[in-house]
Amino acid sequence: MTLFPDDSKTLHTDLYQINMMKAYWDDNMHERRAVFEVFFRDMPFDTGFCVFAGLERIIDYMENLRFTDTDIAYLREETAFEEEFIDYLKNLRFTGTIRSVVEGEFVFKTEPIIQVEANLAEAQLIETALLNIVNFQTLIATKAARIKNVVEGEPLAEFGTRRAQEMDAALWGARAAYIGGCDSTSNIRAGKTFGIPISGTMAHAMVQAYRDEYDAFKRYAQTHKDSIFLVDTYDTLKSGIPNAIKVAQEMGDDINFIGIRLDSGDMAFLSKKARQMLDEAGFPDAKIFASSDLDETTILHLKAQKAKIDAWGVGTKLITAYDQPALGAVYKLVAIADENDVLQDSIKLSSNTEKVTTPAKKKVYRIITNEDGPKAEGDYICLENESLEGVDTLTMFHPIHTYITKEVTNFTAKELLVPIYEKGELVYQRPTLEQTRQYKEENLALLWDEYQRTVRPEQYPVDLSVKCWKNKMQNIENVRKTVQKHSPVNFDIPF
Amino acid sequence: MTLFPDDSKTLHTDLYQINMMKAYWDDNMHERRAVFEVFFRDMPFDTGFCVFAGLERIIDYMENLRFTDTDIAYLREETAFEEEFIDYLKNLRFTGTIRSVVEGEFVFKTEPIIQVEANLAEAQLIETALLNIVNFQTLIATKAARIKNVVEGEPLAEFGTRRAQEMDAALWGARAAYIGGCDSTSNIRAGKTFGIPISGTMAHAMVQAYRDEYDAFKRYAQTHKDSIFLVDTYDTLKSGIPNAIKVAQEMGDDINFIGIRLDSGDMAFLSKKARQMLDEAGFPDAKIFASSDLDETTILHLKAQKAKIDAWGVGTKLITAYDQPALGAVYKLVAIADENDVLQDSIKLSSNTEKVTTPAKKKVYRIITNEDGPKAEGDYICLENESLEGVDTLTMFHPIHTYITKEVTNFTAKELLVPIYEKGELVYQRPTLEQTRQYKEENLALLWDEYQRTVRPEQYPVDLSVKCWKNKMQNIENVRKTVQKHSPVNFDIPF
Repeated sequence: MTLFPDDSKTLHTDLYQINMMKAYWDDNMHERRAVFEVFFRDMPFDTGFCVFAGLERIIDYMENLRFTDTDIAYLREETAFEEEFIDYLKNLRFTGTIRSVVEGEFVFKTEPIIQVEANLAEAQLIETALLNIVNFQTLIATKAARIKNVVEGEPLAEFGTRRAQEMDAALWGARAAYIGGCDSTSNIRAGKTFGIPISGTMAHAMVQAYRDEYDAFKRYAQTHKDSIFLVDTYDTLKSGIPNAIKVAQEMGDDINFIGIRLDSGDMAFLSKKARQMLDEAGFPDAKIFASSDLDETTILHLKAQKAKIDAWGVGTKLITAYDQPALGAVYKLVAIADENDVLQDSIKLSSNTEKVTTPAKKKVYRIITNEDGPKAEGDYICLENESLEGVDTLTMFHPIHTYITKEVTNFTAKELLVPIYEKGELVYQRPTLEQTRQYKEENLALLWDEYQRTVRPEQYPVDLSVKCWKNKMQNIENVRKTVQKHSPVNFDIPF
Repeated sequence: MTLFPDDSKTLHTDLYQINMMKAYWDDNMHERRAVFEVFFRDMPFDTGFCVFAGLERIIDYMENLRFTDTDIAYLREETAFEEEFIDYLKNLRFTGTIRSVVEGEFVFKTEPIIQVEANLAEAQLIETALLNIVNFQTLIATKAARIKNVVEGEPLAEFGTRRAQEMDAALWGARAAYIGGCDSTSNIRAGKTFGIPISGTMAHAMVQAYRDEYDAFKRYAQTHKDSIFLVDTYDTLKSGIPNAIKVAQEMGDDINFIGIRLDSGDMAFLSKKARQMLDEAGFPDAKIFASSDLDETTILHLKAQKAKIDAWGVGTKLITAYDQPALGAVYKLVAIADENDVLQDSIKLSSNTEKVTTPAKKKVYRIITNEDGPKAEGDYICLENESLEGVDTLTMFHPIHTYITKEVTNFTAKELLVPIYEKGELVYQRPTLEQTRQYKEENLALLWDEYQRTVRPEQYPVDLSVKCWKNKMQNIENVRKTVQKHSPVNFDIPF
């Protein structure tokens, strides 16, 4: 067995994609135009909103999408594909169109967040990587945004690398967390690659290396003028904080005593004691940093108990999205061209109603009113040929409980899916990471507080247009007929 | 702000590591010999055993550990480090010693699984990446081994890429899952890079693309002789399985009808119905593949209900270690040389007793008896200068509940930490992935069934030698004295 160098991400896909490409190619179906849409079915963490991330990495991936010599050599060795098909793969370049919401946009379950319109084979090839990227990065940006909402204006540092699920998760997770609202990362590589501010001071090992906590703090302060001392190596209240204060007093103006970091024990109790000790020692401006398996729930409770914490470090719970480590976005065929290149709807049925797809190539509008400043009233999914131009009163209705309706007037409608690739060409002007981060922050102001609550938020409306809903019902009916015609047994709709 | 290319993993570390290196360097402490040990504090998933993985990737990382020009350029721009220190970094190469358990070894909480003996600066630099790698890969190998134990001899396919936490997690996760016991991966890149068997057939999109399920199956079968049909696009029992049977009957000997795949709905109910339909149609050898958010618990329950499933596909729950997505291994200083290069113990205290470290450079023995075939009686952690050679009767005792003891005779003792690097040189002969996988499988036979049970297993003994335990107690006492001497306030041990 040959082992090949890992010099390409083009094979970062599921084998079934290439097996299907082969079947399409054999049947001359591979260049049939198809539309796939990415969406997720459930809000993770019972959150009221998600923050989209992953587009930058998708573009990186797309820009390098071609089978390398070693990819081809591996496929030759591993599969029984004939040379003609291998040749086809060798020359394959992405020639399709991709639309996507932008990074930092808030998004919700059931709505298309990426739309790929490409020939069937190419669209199939890229599915796996797109989902792999978006599922993780959107999850982390969302988690970070939730935590950011809870710490309000206080500094929030991400330092989860050691607990991340391998290196990419640490690196791209740091970036997603920054988009979501973290102010810095501990991962220097992420700083170098993306320009994220980096932060970090000292570990327990340094205190241990000097054996004596006082010596360790002193040596650290002599080297790093902006000093934060980690105070829980031996005993936070009896040794750590007193030694930090002693060094700060001795060094005086030679250092900028920023504060202390608590990393274990009860954060509410210790932070209040620490505040008192620092104040009494004449350091009312010294900050108290807290870290220790923190997430939005623990932070909220610490704040409810009036913990005296000024800055927050989050690791494991953020970088792994610990309480729900997978987003579960899917990539579903919604339309495919017929022999005359006219798109025909496609639907997937299921006895799980949330797994029934909404057919047709669609548009997603965000409906914004401006009574008390601009606010998002909901998202509105309609068919490609529908337009909201000139519409004064929009009736929105719940796509499942259809009797729930509301009328919106005086609104503006913003299209969420913007062109990224057109016929294989990158047409999207990528914003800087700072712009993306700022976009998320400003943009989130559109969202009523009800949707931003960490626990039991209101459900943001994501509605179908009447045409889109009727079209879905019609498609279900059509599939019933078509499938029944060929089905060896009597066919009922499975719900 | 400059953005630098991501051409190195040397900065894949926390900023505090380099800040501490700087403090050590300023104080001429950076070349002080130190011993760090990696261990985890809790068994994930309440498992009875873990499977170690990550060493291959660690070696990759170590072999490329040097600051590139862009790393240096970034540090110059981002930090205030003087040129002498930057020069030191530029020339830094790892010159230390690493011992590790081998991949596929079963390991337990509290015991050292990696030991780094190196100068303080170098040992600090590599901490983050080592933990990042081992935490994830050991978690996934463990999860896979648990699932493997439950499916027994039946084929087990990993296809979690789309739900993995970014690309590395998919790639290295596929490898860890293969070590743990999966038989194949869907990720072609993992197949190419590691030589793992790849598997995969068709997705719902193909059935949708042909609109007609029968047509889709037929086209697929004409291209792929080894046919497995995905039967739940419209209705499993009324459309999917009948169409699969129809195509298999029509194609006859032209194909090798391997079977069908169920991907949604109730697997116990559907598999029994499917078995009956396949049998009645004359395909008693056709296999039933199941996938749909499966993990060891669901599989166990399906088996308890006599589901007729022959092969298993696992995705999300395996590749993210869904029910506990972080292992939480730490890297702790256990000894540091004094001015005369004599190692002195080091300890970290905590009011959380499981966070108190066990000081001193240690050895780990696996104690194996041979009454009913070779079986592991427990692991035995002792000081470096202790040896079990010539010991006939070994008294093992519980490191916390010290009154629990057992005597073991007629045993062999196998050292678990083997040399990987010696003075910066790679001395470890890497096994092939197949050898590693086989080692895990054979090795696991050493473990009594009690420890392999998926739920509520017995706790495998990991004991300290008397000397090691006494040494820990002595260290706690010593720290109390040393710290008290310098502490500004009266010092009590925190527990």
